[in-house]
Amino acid sequence: MDADSRAAVLDERALLRLRSLARLDPDLLVTDFTAPEAAAALREAEVLVTGWGCPPLTAEALALMPALRAVVHTAGTVKGLMTEAAWERGLSVTSAAEANARPVAEYTVAAIVFANKRILDAARAYAEARAQLDPLRLYPAIGNYRRTVGVVGASRIGRRVIELLRSYDVEVLVYDPYLNRQEAAALGVEQTTLDQLTFRSDVVTVHAPELPETRHLLDARHIALMRDGATLINTARGSLVDTEALTAHLVSGRLHAILDVTDPDVLPADSPLYDLPNVLLTPHIAGSLGTELTRLADAAADELDRYSRGLAFAHAVQPTALSRSA
Amino acid sequence: MDADSRAAVLDERALLRLRSLARLDPDLLVTDFTAPEAAAALREAEVLVTGWGCPPLTAEALALMPALRAVVHTAGTVKGLMTEAAWERGLSVTSAAEANARPVAEYTVAAIVFANKRILDAARAYAEARAQLDPLRLYPAIGNYRRTVGVVGASRIGRRVIELLRSYDVEVLVYDPYLNRQEAAALGVEQTTLDQLTFRSDVVTVHAPELPETRHLLDARHIALMRDGATLINTARGSLVDTEALTAHLVSGRLHAILDVTDPDVLPADSPLYDLPNVLLTPHIAGSLGTELTRLADAAADELDRYSRGLAFAHAVQPTALSRSA
Repeated sequence: MDADSRAAVLDERALLRLRSLARLDPDLLVTDFTAPEAAAALREAEVLVTGWGCPPLTAEALALMPALRAVVHTAGTVKGLMTEAAWERGLSVTSAAEANARPVAEYTVAAIVFANKRILDAARAYAEARAQLDPLRLYPAIGNYRRTVGVVGASRIGRRVIELLRSYDVEVLVYDPYLNRQEAAALGVEQTTLDQLTFRSDVVTVHAPELPETRHLLDARHIALMRDGATLINTARGSLVDTEALTAHLVSGRLHAILDVTDPDVLPADSPLYDLPNVLLTPHIAGSLGTELTRLADAAADELDRYSRGLAFAHAVQPTALSRSA
Repeated sequence: MDADSRAAVLDERALLRLRSLARLDPDLLVTDFTAPEAAAALREAEVLVTGWGCPPLTAEALALMPALRAVVHTAGTVKGLMTEAAWERGLSVTSAAEANARPVAEYTVAAIVFANKRILDAARAYAEARAQLDPLRLYPAIGNYRRTVGVVGASRIGRRVIELLRSYDVEVLVYDPYLNRQEAAALGVEQTTLDQLTFRSDVVTVHAPELPETRHLLDARHIALMRDGATLINTARGSLVDTEALTAHLVSGRLHAILDVTDPDVLPADSPLYDLPNVLLTPHIAGSLGTELTRLADAAADELDRYSRGLAFAHAVQPTALSRSA
């Protein structure tokens, strides 16, 4: 992993725990598998602990690691890391994708509560009025009871959002072409088409992977289908939503949005989305940050612990699942 | 109840359900027990469905209701409604306090997630920069992992907050002089003094009742004990916090706050709290509003259903509990 990732993810406590589970040189950070100072350690390495900034495990790199049996990744996807050669080698692979999903789902559920309750609108109206308001008359249809939340994508994060929403009195619709009827029933959600979902939901929240076929998954037509006053939440990837089409509905005030990602990643300085009262725009912070990064190290240590006791990884990554996931 | 409450709480669906459970005149709204047009209905009434704006059940009022056996209140506290005479009459009483606690707890947990993640600060910084930010460097210690939340008051709402927080990786401290050791263990929380709680928590959230002895429960000393950068959330009553002392720590930027209630209820127009970037000030909206009001009617209908089947109320109110509760 790169030095920034190591500094943020592997704090003192995490390093101590990793060292209690494995023989590990705390002074060696490998950012290039061909670096001479890494050669000895790589030759003996049975497990790689990887993270953001890890170079791909090419055939050449793998040749330097004859003893390698497992990869414990301290971040989400292993797509940039695992090559065909690495899968063919039969490595056991685990990632912190589950741990990394938690903060995104938590941001999303908080955003749903804020959106349904019009919390930021009420704060703004109050700061302007500086006098008693009558929220009952200002916002007659708000609230987090019998409202409908549409989850686009029953991904790891989508499922965690659904799980958290079980404690709330909201109806959950899900669109996911890969979800079967039994899985939907087990999740306790109603499966719909994307048209139905956008048409019926008070809040639409996007949790689909970024793939060629998911570009503008929420296109101009779906955005137009959304109900007046509905909120779009995007914590996934900006390209999943037609930002230009969405912007028109936000500028007109017809829709609301809470956007942690946009297309492009950083909007042009003259984008109206920075200042619209019906938009909360955050700079890609829903994922693991701050203390949440140490959860990734904790998850990696848990997996290393299982490995050292001869157990299978709890969050093993299979190459077949990667074509449909982030 | 008053006409506004009836309009907001008893929607079409709720009225239909109540009428399926009891003989009820949908055109009669009693706002004064001595009104001549109410006399016939009150003489026969076995159950009163009450709500905000209901006059007190004085001995004189009770004398007009010889058949009365139960009160089903569609709002939180019955303190304004139940007199000594009404308790002595041995009425069965239930309220929607449990249903009314839900939205407050939901607002609070969303506020905790927003506060720990500095979501609103990041949005503001992003709107100012209109360029790539590095949240890792801007907010190194943020996140909803291994942070400490202090719950002041294991009230109905406090307990619901604790319940919702079970899905999050945060440590929960509780201060409540009436909570015993077994109850704290059952809640899975650490019981502390208020000094310890304010000193150790990243977020302090207040859920104590407004009583003479809880005025300024969080006084200048407790507020000074709070950690730099910590957030105070108040969705209970403004009088529980020394607003003047808190304001000084907010103006200096040392603390953050999310305040749905203040002392006075509406702050003077020149209060700095309306505009501070580290304060989210909302106009008393955390409680039931909009669709959440119909949850109160649903709760009342559930209790009327139990009554009609000869069962005890699920949320019976006992007079002895009222001296310590809101």
